[in-house]
Amino acid sequence: MEEKYMKRALELAKLGEGFVNPNPLVGAVIVREGKIIGEGYHEFFGGPHAEINAFNNATEDVKGAHMYVTLEPCSHYGKTPPCASSIIEKGISKVIIAMKDPNPVVSGRGIDLLKSKGIEVQVGVLEQESKTLNEVFIKYITTKLPYCILKTATTLDGKIATATGDSKWITGEKSREYVHQVRNKISGIMVGVETVIKDNPSLTTRLKDRKGRNPIRIIVDSKGRIPLESKLLKEEGKTIIATTENISSDKCFKLEELGAEIIVTPLKNNRVDLKYLMKELGERRIDSILLEGGGTLNYSALKEGVVDKVMAFIAPKIIGGSSSKTSVEGDGIELMKDSIKLKNISLQRFDDDFLIEGYLR
Amino acid sequence: MEEKYMKRALELAKLGEGFVNPNPLVGAVIVREGKIIGEGYHEFFGGPHAEINAFNNATEDVKGAHMYVTLEPCSHYGKTPPCASSIIEKGISKVIIAMKDPNPVVSGRGIDLLKSKGIEVQVGVLEQESKTLNEVFIKYITTKLPYCILKTATTLDGKIATATGDSKWITGEKSREYVHQVRNKISGIMVGVETVIKDNPSLTTRLKDRKGRNPIRIIVDSKGRIPLESKLLKEEGKTIIATTENISSDKCFKLEELGAEIIVTPLKNNRVDLKYLMKELGERRIDSILLEGGGTLNYSALKEGVVDKVMAFIAPKIIGGSSSKTSVEGDGIELMKDSIKLKNISLQRFDDDFLIEGYLR
Repeated sequence: MEEKYMKRALELAKLGEGFVNPNPLVGAVIVREGKIIGEGYHEFFGGPHAEINAFNNATEDVKGAHMYVTLEPCSHYGKTPPCASSIIEKGISKVIIAMKDPNPVVSGRGIDLLKSKGIEVQVGVLEQESKTLNEVFIKYITTKLPYCILKTATTLDGKIATATGDSKWITGEKSREYVHQVRNKISGIMVGVETVIKDNPSLTTRLKDRKGRNPIRIIVDSKGRIPLESKLLKEEGKTIIATTENISSDKCFKLEELGAEIIVTPLKNNRVDLKYLMKELGERRIDSILLEGGGTLNYSALKEGVVDKVMAFIAPKIIGGSSSKTSVEGDGIELMKDSIKLKNISLQRFDDDFLIEGYLR
Repeated sequence: MEEKYMKRALELAKLGEGFVNPNPLVGAVIVREGKIIGEGYHEFFGGPHAEINAFNNATEDVKGAHMYVTLEPCSHYGKTPPCASSIIEKGISKVIIAMKDPNPVVSGRGIDLLKSKGIEVQVGVLEQESKTLNEVFIKYITTKLPYCILKTATTLDGKIATATGDSKWITGEKSREYVHQVRNKISGIMVGVETVIKDNPSLTTRLKDRKGRNPIRIIVDSKGRIPLESKLLKEEGKTIIATTENISSDKCFKLEELGAEIIVTPLKNNRVDLKYLMKELGERRIDSILLEGGGTLNYSALKEGVVDKVMAFIAPKIIGGSSSKTSVEGDGIELMKDSIKLKNISLQRFDDDFLIEGYLR
């Protein structure tokens, strides 16, 4: 019974995807005698918290009712007053919480506050589901680094383009639609300058049924080779050029004139230092990145340990070619036993394409 | 109801896998008033047909009963007397058949013979299932060419070995066990000489619970480079070296001394002509081949159109490497729209590995 209401709270939380970054997705449900009398979720960054929305939407007095909430209610004054205090004031008799606040600075304080006022508290109902839903937030709040999803799309024989460089299209329409839904939820999209030079992508979010929100475009371009006429420099939304001392100041100036922000990182193997870059991006409140790089950038990102999750689309097509590019290149790992192993593997199918997802930690 | 008995007949047919090549897998069930009174299947090459085994196993008189059989009963004297005649003699009143005999020379004759004697005949119950079960036989009987399954095992980023050549292991134990089960069912296993030189495989069938049957080993080796001390030349069972005029007669002689059979094909792009080879193998009653080649051989086989089915294992590991080998190489196809597309895609999971299967026709 408890799980039913928590499931509903998780459903509500999910509605905030793409709008609350870098804050968590939270849903809340108020229940009295088996009947839902209030629902709410964290709808947008800086907006009222889920608990407050649930109170505001309540259809009757909530005194003595139970509240199901996917994340520990906050106990501190942030952009809004603390939810724990509101719960106490409203006279809620029991609070059921999916997971504790992952922020080490405040974790457990909301629970303690509720308990100190005699409210019954239960923690851990559908905890794993809540943690999965907030995997981005958990990483960001505990490390201040963006959660990085490496997305690849290959043929069955592992190629991201033919030997002549043709890559349109590897996956089918359904898979590509799904990628745009992901773009709509994350804060940044990252590619290497090679991709910009070769494909001239716009890196925007294109949804079928509604206008999407463009992620911040991050171009890894150690020498500043990005063409000034690149499409993505003209698109709505922000572009960041991650570069090194090897860019010319003239190119920097011209890119800034076009509205791009320049982040200069130290050199790492004569390229952009991705770890340093991630820190810089985190400081800019970019909590999540979809990395759609070529083989060289993807390998560097994996090697430097900045990737959290891999989304690998595989299309049941074969193109062959000993010189066709693959999704992860670079020097490569020498021994199979040292390979990068993904954990918690899951699978989805989009028409004839497969999406294999797995985690690096 | 009919399907239930045909399903059972298909189950029985499957028990002959690996023993009946190049003959079909057939199962038969005799039913009276909802009760199975006899079961049989084609157990081994040259042995009694399924229908005859079902009669021999019958627990009561079969007169007036119905027979479910996965393939049209034969009407010709081959290694055994015609089953259609036995069915008539035994007084079966109705015969339910999954699929017609695919052999164009005799297809429909068994059905006609039964009908001519007043026996009711129904064709097409679980027809697709029977066709899938006998995909090898159907190809072989209609073309005299072996059914060729291209098997690959790659990391998530499409590699079959690391940049240093290490390939042990890509897939997990469960996947590798399954491959040995497949080896146990097919007539021949084909690799390129590069694989023999690099990995020195035995290419035998190693089953967990029982002794396997080794497939005939076919080594594609246009110049006769196979080392005479290769393990596979000492293994139980037959080895065929497919070569060209570029082999030395001395090497030919030495290989024959070791018990290998040499097939010399015309040159095709300075390599073994795979189409010609398949014809030669078909004439030797090899009805099915598991191709476990490297990228060059795999590409040639796909390009020359000798592959019927692809079995692609994918392990959730990443190794990278711009010089790491992939499963299909060669020149490659120039445009993505011209890629080789697999049909009737299916998926199986073996622990964390995935097996994607698809057909080329």
